[in-house]
Amino acid sequence: MDEFALIKHFFKPISNARNDIIFGIGDDAACVEVPPDYHLLISCDTLVAGVHFLSTWDAYDIAYKAVLVNVSDIAAMAGKPCWLTLGLTLPESNPIWLQRFAKGLSDALRKFNLSLIGGDTTRGPLTISMTIHGLIPKHCAVRRNGAKPGDIIFVSGELGAAALAVEFLQQPQVDIKDRQLVMQKLLRPNPRVDLSTYLQQYASAAIDISDGLAADLNHICEESQVGACIFFDSIPIHALVKQYHGKQASQLVLHGGDDYELCFTIPKQKVVEFQRELKRNNITCYPMGEIQSSRGLWTKQTDGSIVQVSTHGYNHF
Amino acid sequence: MDEFALIKHFFKPISNARNDIIFGIGDDAACVEVPPDYHLLISCDTLVAGVHFLSTWDAYDIAYKAVLVNVSDIAAMAGKPCWLTLGLTLPESNPIWLQRFAKGLSDALRKFNLSLIGGDTTRGPLTISMTIHGLIPKHCAVRRNGAKPGDIIFVSGELGAAALAVEFLQQPQVDIKDRQLVMQKLLRPNPRVDLSTYLQQYASAAIDISDGLAADLNHICEESQVGACIFFDSIPIHALVKQYHGKQASQLVLHGGDDYELCFTIPKQKVVEFQRELKRNNITCYPMGEIQSSRGLWTKQTDGSIVQVSTHGYNHF
Repeated sequence: MDEFALIKHFFKPISNARNDIIFGIGDDAACVEVPPDYHLLISCDTLVAGVHFLSTWDAYDIAYKAVLVNVSDIAAMAGKPCWLTLGLTLPESNPIWLQRFAKGLSDALRKFNLSLIGGDTTRGPLTISMTIHGLIPKHCAVRRNGAKPGDIIFVSGELGAAALAVEFLQQPQVDIKDRQLVMQKLLRPNPRVDLSTYLQQYASAAIDISDGLAADLNHICEESQVGACIFFDSIPIHALVKQYHGKQASQLVLHGGDDYELCFTIPKQKVVEFQRELKRNNITCYPMGEIQSSRGLWTKQTDGSIVQVSTHGYNHF
Repeated sequence: MDEFALIKHFFKPISNARNDIIFGIGDDAACVEVPPDYHLLISCDTLVAGVHFLSTWDAYDIAYKAVLVNVSDIAAMAGKPCWLTLGLTLPESNPIWLQRFAKGLSDALRKFNLSLIGGDTTRGPLTISMTIHGLIPKHCAVRRNGAKPGDIIFVSGELGAAALAVEFLQQPQVDIKDRQLVMQKLLRPNPRVDLSTYLQQYASAAIDISDGLAADLNHICEESQVGACIFFDSIPIHALVKQYHGKQASQLVLHGGDDYELCFTIPKQKVVEFQRELKRNNITCYPMGEIQSSRGLWTKQTDGSIVQVSTHGYNHF
């Protein structure tokens, strides 16, 4: 099957219709409409076999995760994901693999009311490059550079399970139920688009946690020209991470990636109202630190002592 | 140098300022403004080492060509290119290579008043995945599906030189001046954004010629549910292609890719006005065929005989 037949057969049928799409797949470019009161958000992420996923994974999981990672970038800006393009590089044209890939893609797209509007399929080492487009009411995007000293640092969920799953890949003796539970967190992260309206209203800065809490919070600090103090006992850590790593659990959370929860800051005077609003909507976020004027990243331990944190995260080079 | 330092050092400085960019590189997503009377065009193209270019090429040329290939997709819709994202997969972090790549990227961006607004750098086999964004006045995009029987088929320039350059790569004995001349066509195609306003006004269908005239004209035919007759003697063929291939020159033009000229159709009653308008602006396009109601692709030879044309073009699988 040639490139055009491939695209037609597997990808054209799954491009969900949205009424803001003038036309999608099948021309030199797709054409969409951006509503007049909105800005357009654009982000791209590339996933490479052997780096971001294993080529032995089910193609369904590879596609699904690739979409979620991209959706998370729009969630981190407090936007709403809309349209996706896919650059797919494949070592061979394998219809069984493609069918699974298309199914994972389709399910992930439907979950977020996203539409595939374009793509390019080429031969080469397995690589998935997506560009996601989202909408945000004008001047409501939450950036990395708005954190101010005194702002409270939140994370949107328990951390560490995805990094634990990566460790488990090397440990065949691990309990099968535990493995499945954390693999789920690695393969099906839950990008927090449900927080968008609250973040637009309350947050001063936000980022998604893809490279580890320390590295990603540090991006907020660098862009905002501030520092951060993390309350060591308040970091929400996944129960299995505590079980397997005991007192070292927080290290995995600080320096292990792939959680795709959000880390964001809320000005102190808005915290009560923000938390009341979340509670009313049955959402739990975790306050776990405070922005400070002096640069650097620190943890405040149980005994009140202050410890500097390395900001290293996952590094591709 | 790590991923973030790489991006900061090489790519942040070359993101040209455009006043429709709210913010560009450096956050989870970029944010741009689409004017209310315009639609957004989106297209992605992936270039893989060993398939679309040789890894031995100057990194400047690789970057430059990648941008042009993407610009050509926007030109084929009669749009205006605006913003670009870059997914760059690199086997290693080589500052000298990156500097050349960034320079080629920067020069190509500036040429088209394009801005780099986002990117993702990962480790892996050399692959360049770009998504380009363009603007088009609402409902003025020229698609592949609008050709009608009787419409005249044009191409925007002489064809075949890029395909000849690919052949020359295997022929070390070729005259150096000839080689340089056609390599220029391969490395520096000239995407025809200069035609956008004319196409918006006159064209019924358009496509860029990336896979060969036959394959790409066939896309117009398939999408428009028509056929095409090419006037064999009217195909504009580059002089060196004629010189090296004699009577077989048209085969290279029909089935060899990478020219990035446009192929488009003009309703018969608009042809005179269209050509007058082009002449007034010192632009030459070549009428070289006619759309017909019966499906298939044909050439009309010098002696008046009709020959069916294979629609094969470059196929990645």
